[in-house]
Amino acid sequence: MSIKIAVDAMGGDLAPGVVLEGINQSVALSENADVHYVIFGQQDQVEPLLKNYPAIEKAVTFIHCSEVITGDTEPRSAIRGLKDASMRKAIEAVAAGQADGVVSAGNTGAYMALSKLLLKTLEGIHRPAITSTLPTMHADPVVFLDLGANTDINPEMMMQFCLMGQAFSKSMHDCKNPSVALLNVGSENLKGNIVVREAHHLIQQTDLIKNYIGYVEGDDIFRGKVDVIVTDGFTGNVSLKTIEGTIQFLGYLMKEELSREWRTKLGALLARPAFSAFKSRVDPRRYNGAPFLGLRGISVKSHGGTDSYGFRFALQVAINLVRHRVNDRIQNEVALLQQTLEILP
Amino acid sequence: MSIKIAVDAMGGDLAPGVVLEGINQSVALSENADVHYVIFGQQDQVEPLLKNYPAIEKAVTFIHCSEVITGDTEPRSAIRGLKDASMRKAIEAVAAGQADGVVSAGNTGAYMALSKLLLKTLEGIHRPAITSTLPTMHADPVVFLDLGANTDINPEMMMQFCLMGQAFSKSMHDCKNPSVALLNVGSENLKGNIVVREAHHLIQQTDLIKNYIGYVEGDDIFRGKVDVIVTDGFTGNVSLKTIEGTIQFLGYLMKEELSREWRTKLGALLARPAFSAFKSRVDPRRYNGAPFLGLRGISVKSHGGTDSYGFRFALQVAINLVRHRVNDRIQNEVALLQQTLEILP
Repeated sequence: MSIKIAVDAMGGDLAPGVVLEGINQSVALSENADVHYVIFGQQDQVEPLLKNYPAIEKAVTFIHCSEVITGDTEPRSAIRGLKDASMRKAIEAVAAGQADGVVSAGNTGAYMALSKLLLKTLEGIHRPAITSTLPTMHADPVVFLDLGANTDINPEMMMQFCLMGQAFSKSMHDCKNPSVALLNVGSENLKGNIVVREAHHLIQQTDLIKNYIGYVEGDDIFRGKVDVIVTDGFTGNVSLKTIEGTIQFLGYLMKEELSREWRTKLGALLARPAFSAFKSRVDPRRYNGAPFLGLRGISVKSHGGTDSYGFRFALQVAINLVRHRVNDRIQNEVALLQQTLEILP
Repeated sequence: MSIKIAVDAMGGDLAPGVVLEGINQSVALSENADVHYVIFGQQDQVEPLLKNYPAIEKAVTFIHCSEVITGDTEPRSAIRGLKDASMRKAIEAVAAGQADGVVSAGNTGAYMALSKLLLKTLEGIHRPAITSTLPTMHADPVVFLDLGANTDINPEMMMQFCLMGQAFSKSMHDCKNPSVALLNVGSENLKGNIVVREAHHLIQQTDLIKNYIGYVEGDDIFRGKVDVIVTDGFTGNVSLKTIEGTIQFLGYLMKEELSREWRTKLGALLARPAFSAFKSRVDPRRYNGAPFLGLRGISVKSHGGTDSYGFRFALQVAINLVRHRVNDRIQNEVALLQQTLEILP
């Protein structure tokens, strides 16, 4: 059986060049021999570029779309108008069963709104969650959700996020029995806001989340002590952006201090291999590709500013989630959760 | 007029040694010539140490307390029992007007609970907020609150936090007209959770927060584009601990990569002055001392694991807040806010 991935060629700061080069890199990987890419975009921009990649001809199908959703397009406009936009057409291909997953580096708000509208949530799922992976101090990465889809949630949604994160961890990282924790402001039972405390209580009461280890705090994210960390979309987004900001800030300070005098400049030159290895270990491109988990179809968001190497990773997230049937996993787990919650007193 | 600071000598991992050495350093600063320190602690532990610092004799008064609140003491037990605990006695000194401010490096939960109970909130203030300062890419630091006192808040509390943060910025950093922003997940009007959106709307509607610049995101914290950032205690605590965790993680990776081979080791050796300067710029000791703003009296929490250099900074926060009458500032601003909110339709 082959896997079909719909790709929005027009999304992202450097589209369509970066998108096509990313597909070219993805095709070259032997593990993707069974993957077919359905590219949606504007003919005059995409076709000339496609000619640069004769090797991928057999692995791709191109479909012309007359319209484009840009960074400025309001989600509402994307929903009501722009019926022939490449982003919408790519998602529609999944909704119609013509593709198994879709990837776009375009406007996040519009992509989220269209994915929800056209794909709909899996049965029993209240809300999709933006999910991503982060490196840790240990060999295994950590799955982190929700990163911004839902700013106000309830305890049952939080439990669903636990199951969705575990399904993601199994599919993407081949983790057999992923542990999961709720992000909180302390490790004691009484700590936290109302939603977190109630979710914690519900999980303990029902025993429906396997390998639930309780609470972790913000400084545990990189410690590698848990495979999946769940929070609401407000906290998750602030936390993720705080990480990005801290990395930028420290990099800025380090650069400033290293460039002050010849001695430290020379030191930096000698230490360059270490800086390169360091950079590669926290390279956001290798963690690119955040799916909206919980929808009837795989929809993956690539960072808008990524290059082709990063886009290739976003494609791989979609491919892996399809290959490992993440949605079947989520569906089974959530059905069980629903049944048990319904008979609770 | 002299300033009196009550100090809990028994709080913190390295008490009372670190506390007394911190006081010794604080006394040595010429700017603190008018400060008197009232030290609360167990006689057998504190008095022998005090003999090591003959120079501070005139600047301190020692008061024996028979009990101690430890890291394991439940806030409830601290409130009900332990009536002669050094932490409680130090706070009581402020409540009774015998001291202007209090500093402790002890159990945060107990210290918060006792400070609220004994000092009570300023008139009109709904909840105190844990407030701290962080460095930025620019010369000016940023004031960040609430860092964990209130996990569930309402829009009016958020407005009060704006005023409290601005008063702190004026008192601590001599900032004449501090700008303030709400931490959010995007910069558009419709972004955010319900509380943030309502607070934003209320601020715009009433125009009561001077120099309000709207929303900032997690990656703006270190950019130095705003003087005060306000959020709820849940998000603030997660964000602060995420910063700590990210710094630890990057330090861990950097150390690992630099120690791989002789070339990078030599580079690190040469670059040592840069690493030292870098460390000093993000030294948490220099940002130690987080007041519970909004109480009738200055109550400052020092990090429990800090050394004497860090404790000295926590003392300075209390001294500066007393000296610059931060509570008068808060009281005036909040009274105006209350009056206007009451006549809103």
